[in-house]
Amino acid sequence: MTESWATFGADLHLDLTAGRGLRAGLTEALREAARSGRLAAGTRLPSSRTLAADLGIARNTVAEAYAELVAEGWLTARQGSGTRVAERARPRRPAAAARARRPVRTGPARTGPAYSLVPGSPDLGGFPRAAWLSAARRALTDAPNEAFGYAADPRGRIELRRALAGYLARARGVHADPERIVLCAGFLHGLTVLAGVLRARRVREVAVEGYGLDVHRDLLVRAGLRTRPLGLDGEGARTGELTSAAGAVLLTPAHQFPTGVALTPARRAAAVDWARTTGGLILEDDYDGEFRYDRQPVGALQGLDPDRVVYLGTAGKSLAPGLRMGWMVVPPGLLEEVLAAKRPTDWACGVLDQLTLAAFITSGAYDRHVRGMRLRYRRRRDELVAAVGDRVGVSGIAAGLHAVLDLPGGTERSVLQSAAWQDLALHGLERFRHPEAVALPGRDAVVVGYGTPSDSAWSPTLAALAAALP
Amino acid sequence: MTESWATFGADLHLDLTAGRGLRAGLTEALREAARSGRLAAGTRLPSSRTLAADLGIARNTVAEAYAELVAEGWLTARQGSGTRVAERARPRRPAAAARARRPVRTGPARTGPAYSLVPGSPDLGGFPRAAWLSAARRALTDAPNEAFGYAADPRGRIELRRALAGYLARARGVHADPERIVLCAGFLHGLTVLAGVLRARRVREVAVEGYGLDVHRDLLVRAGLRTRPLGLDGEGARTGELTSAAGAVLLTPAHQFPTGVALTPARRAAAVDWARTTGGLILEDDYDGEFRYDRQPVGALQGLDPDRVVYLGTAGKSLAPGLRMGWMVVPPGLLEEVLAAKRPTDWACGVLDQLTLAAFITSGAYDRHVRGMRLRYRRRRDELVAAVGDRVGVSGIAAGLHAVLDLPGGTERSVLQSAAWQDLALHGLERFRHPEAVALPGRDAVVVGYGTPSDSAWSPTLAALAAALP
Repeated sequence: MTESWATFGADLHLDLTAGRGLRAGLTEALREAARSGRLAAGTRLPSSRTLAADLGIARNTVAEAYAELVAEGWLTARQGSGTRVAERARPRRPAAAARARRPVRTGPARTGPAYSLVPGSPDLGGFPRAAWLSAARRALTDAPNEAFGYAADPRGRIELRRALAGYLARARGVHADPERIVLCAGFLHGLTVLAGVLRARRVREVAVEGYGLDVHRDLLVRAGLRTRPLGLDGEGARTGELTSAAGAVLLTPAHQFPTGVALTPARRAAAVDWARTTGGLILEDDYDGEFRYDRQPVGALQGLDPDRVVYLGTAGKSLAPGLRMGWMVVPPGLLEEVLAAKRPTDWACGVLDQLTLAAFITSGAYDRHVRGMRLRYRRRRDELVAAVGDRVGVSGIAAGLHAVLDLPGGTERSVLQSAAWQDLALHGLERFRHPEAVALPGRDAVVVGYGTPSDSAWSPTLAALAAALP
Repeated sequence: MTESWATFGADLHLDLTAGRGLRAGLTEALREAARSGRLAAGTRLPSSRTLAADLGIARNTVAEAYAELVAEGWLTARQGSGTRVAERARPRRPAAAARARRPVRTGPARTGPAYSLVPGSPDLGGFPRAAWLSAARRALTDAPNEAFGYAADPRGRIELRRALAGYLARARGVHADPERIVLCAGFLHGLTVLAGVLRARRVREVAVEGYGLDVHRDLLVRAGLRTRPLGLDGEGARTGELTSAAGAVLLTPAHQFPTGVALTPARRAAAVDWARTTGGLILEDDYDGEFRYDRQPVGALQGLDPDRVVYLGTAGKSLAPGLRMGWMVVPPGLLEEVLAAKRPTDWACGVLDQLTLAAFITSGAYDRHVRGMRLRYRRRRDELVAAVGDRVGVSGIAAGLHAVLDLPGGTERSVLQSAAWQDLALHGLERFRHPEAVALPGRDAVVVGYGTPSDSAWSPTLAALAAALP
């Protein structure tokens, strides 16, 4: 359908003063029209395509001006209703007032864009509230009194460590012994502890994947470690590049984040060889290993050499990040070092959630929940491929909660801008690149976290994505 | 009915090595999993249909593998109960078996002495399991989906901050605004954050009470701060001794730990004067302010000057240390510094306990619970005084969960030895002394945590104490 100014919009006269940048001029002219009331609140603006054609300028220039004014609060953009003058387009509150109000509006859905495909979150609407409550009832009924006291064991409750040992062996091929499982408050806590271990070992450098999460790299750097990027390709991280300069390597073998490839057997073997030769540690971030779709399950790298690999898992993707629950399976020889490094944070990890998760796993509810979510995510993934697969390459989709959409060269930034215009939060591949990593040649892409939207938001979010793509 | 993995089954990771026949590979993988114990005896396997779908192989292949392993005795198959791993006698490895028994004895009551009057713990048998579960049900029902995601606000959930603001103002006389409440995982987490604030302010020295908890002092020292003891007498800490050398002072005004006195109005005023004059901070540890018996409630020092005092409270005494829940009420000008210092530990604090405690407070269950526990503890205190009050001086008993028993000069060590002989864990006053603090003149004493025993252990514990006293 051709969206036309004549059909939807108000006719609009804009003075684009020459001598300023076109975009700045357009932005200022639109802002002034909204501020002065010349454009009434609720007025629908022409589409960027239409206005661009009308003004004889590039569509991106218009899209960027719109995005800026949306960010400033002068305009609103909603899928299906276009870009409109905001209801209360007026000077924003002073900074202090804005800060004071911020906490009341805690929900990201209310402060951020209307739609989000930012990776890293499961569908929070899928949290199994009733089953979790049943597990909490069982946990509260069965818990011995001493469970409510100060933790007697720095590894965490034995009930959960036993349940996890069974689950991880069965579902992820991890060599797990409850004695060597250390519970923590999510992956970042585990990585904090391990950074402490490395620092105590006087390690200076940790190898990381060339593309990954900056919060992980930043945590290592804050702990006084240098991070060195490994190359990445279709077989995963180039573990053959590992040298004795690194005391550890942080890997996502089951489903590289963000590129989505599984580390090949040869690359796994190279990592283990490196660890055996140099005494280095492999930190295995198995963040979404539960979710696999079309392929043979990719077992944990830890199974190859439990003496060299620290396995890190979390309930953040399978259940909810808000639980703050994670676990490490630690090599026998490393347990004391890990517990020593954990000591300054032994105040973390409430006991009731530990007992509840233990009951949740042993009752079979965890398997049922993962199974159910897997079906939901698989359906979304299929719908994502159906919606955009003919226009962009879609990869990294055999597992997990995210996919990579390959874009025509040089279009990543403009796609992100046009996503912002669709009121869609979206991350480009580039933002995950280690500052010292060589950019993947000619790889413009966006990383789509299709687990993030709620079920009700999924369709409009997908439509917003489709509209943002070239 | 469709038999599905989601309904029945366990999630199962199997390595199917390529290059062998699929059926042979599957059979061997399952046999190995059963043999090694990775699949425990009795574990129910997925139906052949489900496993086949999951592995992407023909159902017959799975059925044949199952049949072969049933024939070999590794699995059993019964109509109506599915296919399970057979019960088989496996030789136990001695070392592993010994290790496997250790974690069963996690409770301090089972590893330590039979009786304990070590202070610092409430009666864990008093945890309100049923009321807590009701609150959890309400919390799980009412929580918005976004609550399960990554925390949107580093201060913690607004629901709990609102509930606490009301409670603390009403019950403790705290000037509390939800905007300035920062939730944390118990007192030690709060003190960790505040130590970070002080370090960022380049503070070198923190004044502490001459007698107190070594874990608190050690935490400050690990954070690079020096601790300097204040004298203590019947009016509490000698706050008149504070100088500009200290950037902060850590106090227990409502009920000094361990001596049990309340900080007098004059000493409170001196502390606030010092803070105003030097710009120093007062850190108020209100660890058991809820429990008072014979006297007018002693309000929080924070009420005197909310701009100079950081109030720290915790659910560790009123509910259970295992919850790992605490809160800080922060002066307005300090909020940004506190949140910056908290950032490296923002992974702590699970959301479900926060929402549950909020529901627990707003329903009135918290007040009811504290009132009920206050009666129990008061009865114990009266029984303690009745049992030993004619032989030793009992002080610090107007509030809290502990009392100080004054002993004849020079007998503290022999009483502790005789307590050990009674199988009673007991702490002397001397162990709480700051290494640089002047010993209280002629003060031999033991610190009796009468909240610690369970109801059933209370009588024999009291008898053991009576037997240990001179």
